[in-house]
Amino acid sequence: MTGPDNDTRQAPLRVGALVFPGFEVLDLFGPVELLHQTDGRFSIRIVAAQPGEVASAQNVRIVADEGFGDAGEFDILLVPGGIGTRTEVANPVLLDWLRRMEPQARHVASVCTGSALLAKAGLLDGHRATSNKIAFDWVVGQGPSVQWVRRARWVEDGKFFTSSGISAGMDMTLALVERLFGRPVSEEAARRAEYQWNSKSGNDPFAAA
Amino acid sequence: MTGPDNDTRQAPLRVGALVFPGFEVLDLFGPVELLHQTDGRFSIRIVAAQPGEVASAQNVRIVADEGFGDAGEFDILLVPGGIGTRTEVANPVLLDWLRRMEPQARHVASVCTGSALLAKAGLLDGHRATSNKIAFDWVVGQGPSVQWVRRARWVEDGKFFTSSGISAGMDMTLALVERLFGRPVSEEAARRAEYQWNSKSGNDPFAAA
Repeated sequence: MTGPDNDTRQAPLRVGALVFPGFEVLDLFGPVELLHQTDGRFSIRIVAAQPGEVASAQNVRIVADEGFGDAGEFDILLVPGGIGTRTEVANPVLLDWLRRMEPQARHVASVCTGSALLAKAGLLDGHRATSNKIAFDWVVGQGPSVQWVRRARWVEDGKFFTSSGISAGMDMTLALVERLFGRPVSEEAARRAEYQWNSKSGNDPFAAA
Repeated sequence: MTGPDNDTRQAPLRVGALVFPGFEVLDLFGPVELLHQTDGRFSIRIVAAQPGEVASAQNVRIVADEGFGDAGEFDILLVPGGIGTRTEVANPVLLDWLRRMEPQARHVASVCTGSALLAKAGLLDGHRATSNKIAFDWVVGQGPSVQWVRRARWVEDGKFFTSSGISAGMDMTLALVERLFGRPVSEEAARRAEYQWNSKSGNDPFAAA
């Protein structure tokens, strides 16, 4: 276990959270909630192809703050999954945006089938990663050069954090908070959210067959 | 333990999910996610004072499908908490809407400080209920005739389900799904969401002092 990247307070880290039609709500809002429970250590912007309304897989609409062309810079990219990834893996505009944003990002985090988008963009080639356990084989097909891990709540490899399905994004997010700011900050975020953190990345009750 | 209210498939149950400025995102989207993982047993509408954009406590904006005047009928009311409840407990329009909608609802479910709104509206008088454990004393002050429970992940009393803070709403939602459709349906929803369900309402690691 290495120490936290930061242990003093600085300007908030800029989080760019990608959304697209058919994104999964808990993939996005679980992480957003926990990042928010850290006393302003993160500022979150919702990014989509264009600013404005985007409908989730659950048919609830949210509002993107900016579009791909708005040239924001982000310290952290957050990529949710959802049924919409089945379409977006064939969307060159979205994949190009990921490729363009990745080099400047200190961390890139995906939840559930969000890792299929990172894989299809080529960003995970040679890296260890995981994904949703029900859709696992489909995800593997999006990135044959990725070292896919079938039993993991989440996987950290270099700048990349990839989580298992939906709810696992919350456990991964707290691990990312720990990496950035240390264990007391991640534990306090969990406490404020009354979240029972599965803090062991290898503890995966839903491992893929 | 009584049996499920329903064990055969019928029309989706209509869920009216209340939002207001400063609602907490996970209070809303944890339950929405898990209700969605039940093969169409629920249809969810987002309701606010007016249709249109509403900003959460996390500053992410979502879109309300309908306003208080749109006269929808709901089988289930879902009431999130968040810092915005501090304002809304003094909003007679919102409290009147809750009073108007409650009689027709088969179940009324709140997450976190959402129970302060139900309490202030008088709907929980004489009932057992719980709430966020950090804000507990403030919530108690909104409903002195409520039987507040300091150690509970959630409380079920008659038609009312009230949960502890933020993340506890997911555990409560699966208990509501179990009540309505039986344990196999709630367990399958948890599995699909890769959610590690704390299924014991009395198992509360964050109990109020």
